[in-house]
Formats: sequence, C-alpha cells, structure tokens
Amino acid sequence: MQNPAVSPVISQVQPIRWQDNRLLLLDQRLLPAQEVELAFDDAPGVAGAIRDMVVRGAPAIGIAAAYAVVLSARQHAERQPGAWLEGVQHDIGVLLESRPTAVNLHWALARMSRLAQTVDRNDPVPALLQEALTIHNEDRAANLRMAEYGAALLPPEATVLTHCNTGALATGGYGTALGVIRRAHAEGRLSHVYASETRPWLQGARLTAWELAKERIPVSLLVEGAAASLMQSGRIDWVIVGADRIVANGDVANKIGTYSLAVAARHHGVKFMVVAPTSTFDPTLGSGADIPIEHRPVEEITRIIQQNYRDVTGWNPVFDVTPAGLIDAIVTERGVIRNPDAAGVAALLTGSRSAVL
Amino acid sequence: MQNPAVSPVISQVQPIRWQDNRLLLLDQRLLPAQEVELAFDDAPGVAGAIRDMVVRGAPAIGIAAAYAVVLSARQHAERQPGAWLEGVQHDIGVLLESRPTAVNLHWALARMSRLAQTVDRNDPVPALLQEALTIHNEDRAANLRMAEYGAALLPPEATVLTHCNTGALATGGYGTALGVIRRAHAEGRLSHVYASETRPWLQGARLTAWELAKERIPVSLLVEGAAASLMQSGRIDWVIVGADRIVANGDVANKIGTYSLAVAARHHGVKFMVVAPTSTFDPTLGSGADIPIEHRPVEEITRIIQQNYRDVTGWNPVFDVTPAGLIDAIVTERGVIRNPDAAGVAALLTGSRSAVL
Repeated sequence: MQNPAVSPVISQVQPIRWQDNRLLLLDQRLLPAQEVELAFDDAPGVAGAIRDMVVRGAPAIGIAAAYAVVLSARQHAERQPGAWLEGVQHDIGVLLESRPTAVNLHWALARMSRLAQTVDRNDPVPALLQEALTIHNEDRAANLRMAEYGAALLPPEATVLTHCNTGALATGGYGTALGVIRRAHAEGRLSHVYASETRPWLQGARLTAWELAKERIPVSLLVEGAAASLMQSGRIDWVIVGADRIVANGDVANKIGTYSLAVAARHHGVKFMVVAPTSTFDPTLGSGADIPIEHRPVEEITRIIQQNYRDVTGWNPVFDVTPAGLIDAIVTERGVIRNPDAAGVAALLTGSRSAVL
Repeated sequence: MQNPAVSPVISQVQPIRWQDNRLLLLDQRLLPAQEVELAFDDAPGVAGAIRDMVVRGAPAIGIAAAYAVVLSARQHAERQPGAWLEGVQHDIGVLLESRPTAVNLHWALARMSRLAQTVDRNDPVPALLQEALTIHNEDRAANLRMAEYGAALLPPEATVLTHCNTGALATGGYGTALGVIRRAHAEGRLSHVYASETRPWLQGARLTAWELAKERIPVSLLVEGAAASLMQSGRIDWVIVGADRIVANGDVANKIGTYSLAVAARHHGVKFMVVAPTSTFDPTLGSGADIPIEHRPVEEITRIIQQNYRDVTGWNPVFDVTPAGLIDAIVTERGVIRNPDAAGVAALLTGSRSAVL
C-alpha cells in the first residue's frame, strides 16, 4: 500500500517512505548510479542506516528516526505487551547515538518519546505512526513555506551557489536550501545554480546535481576549492545552504565547507542565506563552540585514490560552525531572521515574530 | 646510463630523468598506486604528456619542455641536417600550446630557443642537452635556497597547511613549498603538515601525502572545504603554496583553491607564503587579471562518481589568482619579497636586492 500521505507532486525524489508497515529508505550511498530502497523492520537497523549514511540530511534523519520509534513500539509491544515502553526507550537511546551533530534527530525523538509516555499502553502503534507521519508532513509543509520566504529574498535572474545536498533527499521531500532554489526556478527568477561537489561524500556531485538535472534546473558542478574564485568573478548573488544545528546566538553547524563559503562570501560582499526548519534550532546551546562536531575516518578521504598510507592521518570533521556574524539571513518556516543574533533567534522561537521580517 | 647530474640525495622521487638519450617521465597520473616511467623520443610526445598531466607542476613542466627541445633537435637534425631549426621552432610552438597558465614553460622554451639560434648548426644536440641539464640543475639549486629562506620564516614547532603538490614531483627534484616544509622538518622546527587533497586531480592526496610519507614527515590529509575550519581552530601558523605565474604587481596564479586559502588565512590572521623560483615570474603582465586561466572538462570532476549527467555542466578552472595584498611573503632563490607589490617584484627581478629581505 502506497502511503497516502506521501504526495508525489512535491518531488520525484522520496528518500523516506512508510509502506506495508515497513520503513523504506532510498540508499543515498548508491546514488546516482543506482536507485535502491532498503526496507527496515526495527529501530537498530534504522540507527545503523543513519550512522552509515543510507539516509542523511538533518531533517531526513529526524523523520527516519521518528518512523524507527514506530517500528520499535510495534516490535516490543508484540514481544512484551506490558513492558514495551522500556524497549522503546532503549531504542531511542540507540537512535540518539547514531549521529551527533544534527539536532533534528534529538528533536524528533524527544517528540516521539513524549507521546510514547502518554499513548494507549495496550495499542501504542496507531498514535505513534500518526505522529511520525505528522512530523514527515510538517517537514514538507515547512519546506514549502521556507522556499517561498527564501526565494523572495533573491534578485531577479539570480545566480546562486549551494553546498552539499539540501533537497528532497535531505528532507521530507522538497528541500531547505534546494527548496528555495526550486521555488526561485519555478518563479522564473533563477538564472543559474552552482553546486559544490562536497567532499568527501560528494553529496553535491551525486545528489544535488542529480536532483536538479531531473527537474531541468541549470546547474554547474565545481570543486570546493573553486568557490572563492567563482565569487571573485562576480557572478554569485547568494550562497544558500542548509543547517544541521542552529544555536541560541544564531551560529550554524552545517556540512564541512560551509564556513569556508561564508568567509569567502563576506570577503566578496556576496549574501549568505541559511535555510532550516525550526526543528534544527537548539536554544539550549549558547554558541557554536558548544556544538559536538562529528569526525569520521581518514579512509573516507583516501578511498577515492584506493590507497591507504600507513603514515598518513586525516583531519575529517563532517561539519563546521559558521558564526552568526557571517550570515545575512536564516530562513525558517516561521519567517526570516535577518542579521541573526540571540535576540532574533529568541524572538523567532518564542513566536513573537510570525511573519517574514 | 644513469644521468650523473641527477643526485639521488636530493629526493627519492625523481619525476624527470634523461637516460640513454631519452626523456623518462614518471607517470604522475598513476601515483601512488603504481610507479611507471614513460620514455619519450620526440617533442610532440612530450607536449602530449604535459597536456595529459603525465608531468605537472610549473617548474617540472618547464624542465620537461627543455629536454623536449633536445629531442626535437636530434630528430630534425637527423632528418633534415641543414634545416633542423625550422622543425625545432615548430615543435617549440606545439610545446608552448600544451598548458596555458604556468609561465615556466614559456621561460624554459624561450631560453632553449635563444640557444638553438646560436648553437653549432651542424651538431646542435650537445649544447642543447647541456642547457636542458643546466635548467634542471638550476631548478634544484633554486629549490634548496628557497627552502632555506622559507624555513627561516617559520616559528619553532610550526604547523603548516599546504595545497596541491609542490614537491620533488613538481620540480627538478626537491620542491618549492614542499621544499620549505622538507627543510623545516630537517631542521627540527616542523610540528605537523596538513595537506589538502586538491580536487579534482587529488595532487595533495596522491602526491604530497605520498612524498611526505616516504620521508616520514607527519602529515594529515583534509578536504579543501575543511581548511577554513582548520584555521578557525587556531592550529595553523602558515599556509605555504607554490605558484604557476607571478606577475609584475605580485599577484599569483596557482592551483585552484589557493585563493580560497588566502582569503581564509587573512580572515584568521594566518600567514600566507608563496614559494617559487624566478622562472615563475612574468613581469610582462601587469596584474593577475591578465593571466590566461586554463579550464578543463567537467568530466574531471564527475569521473570519481562514474556518472556523466546529460544536463549538468561544470565550472572547472585549473588555477586561480591570489592578489598580492593577501600574501605575506614570496620566497624565491634570490630572496624574499615581504608584503609583495610592484616595487618589490621589480627590485627582486632587477637584482637590486640579492639577499633575504
């Protein structure tokens, strides 16, 4: 049974689907060469898929984890009808450990955990599934609103530079930064997209180029090293990126390479936009220095040369932190924070601003 | 017969050797997986090897081209004893077209061309071979002097970041930026080297890491996108790079990604050093905007994902231009230009400064 809540209108690309009471994840490690969906029946399997990057992108990770809690509740309710909650709480702990930086994972699991504690103890699955579907749908709805707000910031015939993949694959099915780009293209105000290939996982070359090519949005790939030179040439209006965690003062953790783009953008007077739903905000941390940054093995860098050096180490952080001072606009589904700072973040999160500012 | 002019003391790695009256080039496209030397008997073959990046690195390209002129003179003197010079001049034209940005190629070919016009017309080969060997030896000697001058600029226990490959493989056999790093390591004043992998050809991952690992110099690889974050962490003292062309005002063309590092270095107060012999200077061009920048096909970027998209183009410049204002020191075999500008370049090239300044 096709999940009726997933609308194919949003994008041809769906990274996460709930079907026949199983979670299907498009294996993003194999794209664009192969489109293979993997099926999951339990939470540890989903945690492994998050850790191994079958599914990636901060919002998508949160959504996948929410569905994993449904799988967990069903499995434990079948095995231990009276004591399923303990099993679910254990699985939530395993899921929380799968990736450290993106806060959407924590946010979605906290929401599912709260519901699990109040749900019908004899039949928890229907309510938890409804909540996971709601999280999924809310993310898509947030994407569409952010896309509208972000596109409105662009000049006519805009040329933009984006980094990593923030599209349908990284979200509930439309995109954050790439959602803004999709919307701008649909409105006829986009001239060209430059996409950095995004080493070492090549999300830009494998995923962003693939998504944009599917929709015939004009895109040129470049290596990260060329981005500053591209800005020097004067042809970039905005850099548009997503986020994995935004803290109280407006500092942003995102894919490694984002900070380099922000420094170069400021040097050249190019505008810098971060697009992320409020599920990406973590007001419990005061500044970017507090964000845990995941490091991964040097083999992720060296495997493309098919060579492991005995005496060569690597420095392979997955994310970096861009200070709020280098950001011109943070676009959320609740509105836009211009020149973000602690006051702007607090006003957005407490709801004292509700429209585009 | 081993060429007696090539001293194995300088480095274990020799990209260019003259042996048994042939030119041997280490095929740098296959490193580090395989060490294969290709033999060349004529100039068009060498021009192809330069274009296809069998040999790369501005000084190494110049040296290879000088030997190619010897091959050309021998071939044409055998075929047309009275009219070999026309054949050589044609081959020089072919060699000049092989790569557009590095000026060492022009410099070496101009030097060989001048000699060809004054040499014994009945037996041109010995004098031309001697000149090519001299160019090769002069480059190694210049490397050693630059290494001394550059290392002296570093603080004790220096941690440095380098880009691309500027080592034995890129030169006559020791290195420009990597020569400074070798010398600093030999002097016991080097704590650690960070090497960017240098997309799309991965000269850092394939060549620099390989050269340094051979000599047990501690090195960590990183993706280009991580460099600004590394500087943000406070652990880099100097960025040290080579050059493909330095023009009258001190602007520097070098491997794509260099300019990004210079912008990030300035943002973080990290020092920025360019190391290049005077054969890399082109005072006929007023500023970096005049330097021809080679662009190569998008397939160089997309081949690592083994995917060619029909609708995806690429922006793949091989070099970028770093303005003199972002450079703290240009190190040459004649001395150091601090805070380079037109006056400093002119003083160095006219010989009015001859020691380390």
